[in-house]
Amino acid sequence: MREKGVILLSGGIDSTVTLYLAKKYKIECFALIFDYNQRHKKEIFYALKNAKKLNVPYRLLRINLGWGGSALTDPRMKLPQRKIKRGIPSTYVPGRNLIFLSFAFSLAEVIKAKKIFIGAHTQDYSGYPDCRGEFLNSFQVSANLGIKEKGIEIVAPLLDKNKAEIIRLGLSLGVDFSQTWSCYKGKKFPCLKCDSCRFRMEGFKKVGIGDPLLAKRKVKSRRF
Amino acid sequence: MREKGVILLSGGIDSTVTLYLAKKYKIECFALIFDYNQRHKKEIFYALKNAKKLNVPYRLLRINLGWGGSALTDPRMKLPQRKIKRGIPSTYVPGRNLIFLSFAFSLAEVIKAKKIFIGAHTQDYSGYPDCRGEFLNSFQVSANLGIKEKGIEIVAPLLDKNKAEIIRLGLSLGVDFSQTWSCYKGKKFPCLKCDSCRFRMEGFKKVGIGDPLLAKRKVKSRRF
Repeated sequence: MREKGVILLSGGIDSTVTLYLAKKYKIECFALIFDYNQRHKKEIFYALKNAKKLNVPYRLLRINLGWGGSALTDPRMKLPQRKIKRGIPSTYVPGRNLIFLSFAFSLAEVIKAKKIFIGAHTQDYSGYPDCRGEFLNSFQVSANLGIKEKGIEIVAPLLDKNKAEIIRLGLSLGVDFSQTWSCYKGKKFPCLKCDSCRFRMEGFKKVGIGDPLLAKRKVKSRRF
Repeated sequence: MREKGVILLSGGIDSTVTLYLAKKYKIECFALIFDYNQRHKKEIFYALKNAKKLNVPYRLLRINLGWGGSALTDPRMKLPQRKIKRGIPSTYVPGRNLIFLSFAFSLAEVIKAKKIFIGAHTQDYSGYPDCRGEFLNSFQVSANLGIKEKGIEIVAPLLDKNKAEIIRLGLSLGVDFSQTWSCYKGKKFPCLKCDSCRFRMEGFKKVGIGDPLLAKRKVKSRRF
């Protein structure tokens, strides 16, 4: 019997590479995809696309984080368009990974999965407290105290990698990056100005290849 | 300025007494009420009623725990009707307090509340792993690692009390127990057979008074 794993899938580069990695390890994956009223709901489209492509059963959960506190969920807050700085950016969503991981533990317990995969990594998003190993390790201990089945493990295989390393890993696994979405604005084309676009651009630049998503854009923009 | 607190409000005896207690301590309360597709959705009606009565702003969150694993959320599973035993009953909902507390931390961070009130207690529900102090203490540490604002405290004032003690405390605070709901079946009248009814009945019996909710039933059943 193959080992089961719940995977938090957003539709971005990190979680998509994590999904491919889990599949490579022959994990029987179950994807959790969240609609938390994020600006870039568009990422959900790509999450669904990759889950279907890899034949991974998924569940799309709609949760209301309507109390704002983040530029990603509160339309009154402006998205930062700036060079990458230190500190916690306004795109931080309070409690996001706490909530996502809690749902993942619930599902893992029910389907008897012993692993939860998350694409969190610290190097780029040092600002998000819920992407740090310190948090993930501690949460794993607490969550196991709160459930019946014990020994569920949080696996964050990208934790110490930077974006370029993650892209390289993805390429080696056959990830089609034209089918991933990063831009926080979630418009038709990536804005290339928000933090998430900048990290993505820097990553592809370091790897030394063009972003397939942008190649698609060029083709499309020539057509019309 | 009054201290702010988020309170997890279900509409049952424990969370209602906790709400009254927080109000007594002059906490500016914000209630979180969950529709997680529980059989006894009826409890939500009472949660809303008490929040409104005490002038407490609230948010009703609908979350999908559609993967079952509990007799409270899976209609295919039978509710236990038995004497209170040791062990984890089938009414245990995997990850419930993990999820509820995670949302509470998110809201607390946004509204700058430093306390989260929960009516959990161990004596009656020794079977539920997410009602134990060990879990609550550990979760508090983990959650604070995952958020920006630090020092948010989980307050579980009923942790070591039994149902009779909680009812006595509620009476001293002016709680109207005819406006609380416990029965897992969530029908028109309490079934008086499920675990939750049994705990409630035992509590009122030990206190030596009748359950005002049942008194209401008698009046109503005489009328028709």
